[in-house]
Amino acid sequence: MSHTIRNQTKLLARVRRLKGQMEAIERALEAEQPCGDILNLVASVRGAVQGLTVELIEDHIREHVAGPGVETDRDRQQGAAELIEVVRRYLK
Amino acid sequence: MSHTIRNQTKLLARVRRLKGQMEAIERALEAEQPCGDILNLVASVRGAVQGLTVELIEDHIREHVAGPGVETDRDRQQGAAELIEVVRRYLK
Amino acid sequence: MSHTIRNQTKLLARVRRLKGQMEAIERALEAEQPCGDILNLVASVRGAVQGLTVELIEDHIREHVAGPGVETDRDRQQGAAELIEVVRRYLK
Amino acid sequence: MSHTIRNQTKLLARVRRLKGQMEAIERALEAEQPCGDILNLVASVRGAVQGLTVELIEDHIREHVAGPGVETDRDRQQGAAELIEVVRRYLK
Repeated sequence: MSHTIRNQTKLLARVRRLKGQMEAIERALEAEQPCGDILNLVASVRGAVQGLTVELIEDHIREHVAGPGVETDRDRQQGAAELIEVVRRYLK
Repeated sequence: MSHTIRNQTKLLARVRRLKGQMEAIERALEAEQPCGDILNLVASVRGAVQGLTVELIEDHIREHVAGPGVETDRDRQQGAAELIEVVRRYLK
Repeated sequence: MSHTIRNQTKLLARVRRLKGQMEAIERALEAEQPCGDILNLVASVRGAVQGLTVELIEDHIREHVAGPGVETDRDRQQGAAELIEVVRRYLK
Repeated sequence: MSHTIRNQTKLLARVRRLKGQMEAIERALEAEQPCGDILNLVASVRGAVQGLTVELIEDHIREHVAGPGVETDRDRQQGAAELIEVVRRYLK
């Protein structure tokens, strides 16, 4: 069972909170609030997305690359390849 | 009139698209999709949030710092101070 | 006189410190130190480069976009265009 | 033998190139070149530092977390813990 399934409740709570933050930006735009406020709300969303990303990558490392639950070396190599792809996407 | 008001329609469309992307992640988690798929969806959200940020900052520079609509030098200095705060928050 | 000239001494000090940090990485590699140490040294360089970037951007905003020293509106628009290009390069 | 030792020549070449880029910034500041040029040189350094980071992390994953050369599970867990620390440092 993958980490996105085992931690489903926790991840869903994070994602729903993020959706709530997007709705707050929507309301702030509709209410014509100052652009400084909008920029601050967007910066918070960015922080929350980074947090979600770090959590997913950590769980991925523990479950699909380093963990005792990785059954074959082939699975481990696939988990590592996916991880490297994500690192490249985020750091380049 | 501030840029977040003048460009309200365009910004609202972006924010609603982002909310739709969050809902796609929610559904993917509920459907227990592979974690690689979830990571890709989150990476797309991150790109969209960066895009929204760049748009807000550009509009802010044009409207509150450099534009012909800035009425007093005091307003310009305030716009610049807000901009510097955002740059620090994003690059440090 | 541009900010990179007026603040030359301060900026040169920062750049020379950064060069010193690169030399520390060079020595650590030659001395075959643990990869965790190398990664930490590189992370510090990254932080220092971000700090230098923020300083340059702040000086640029104050001098070429918002400051009282900007002589014509055409100069201001050019300063703003350069700034927007940098913001795009860093945030996309 | 660690990856920072095995790939020493390649990594040293990268680090020396980066030091050369720092020296170019030093010369540009001394020659009082336009601040737009300085900003572009610093942006290139940032790109090169990101590239070096990605290379170190990839090598670390292959050698200390996923690779066939990891001898004990304890070593693997330690490699994973170091990796997670780096991911947190870079993405938060």
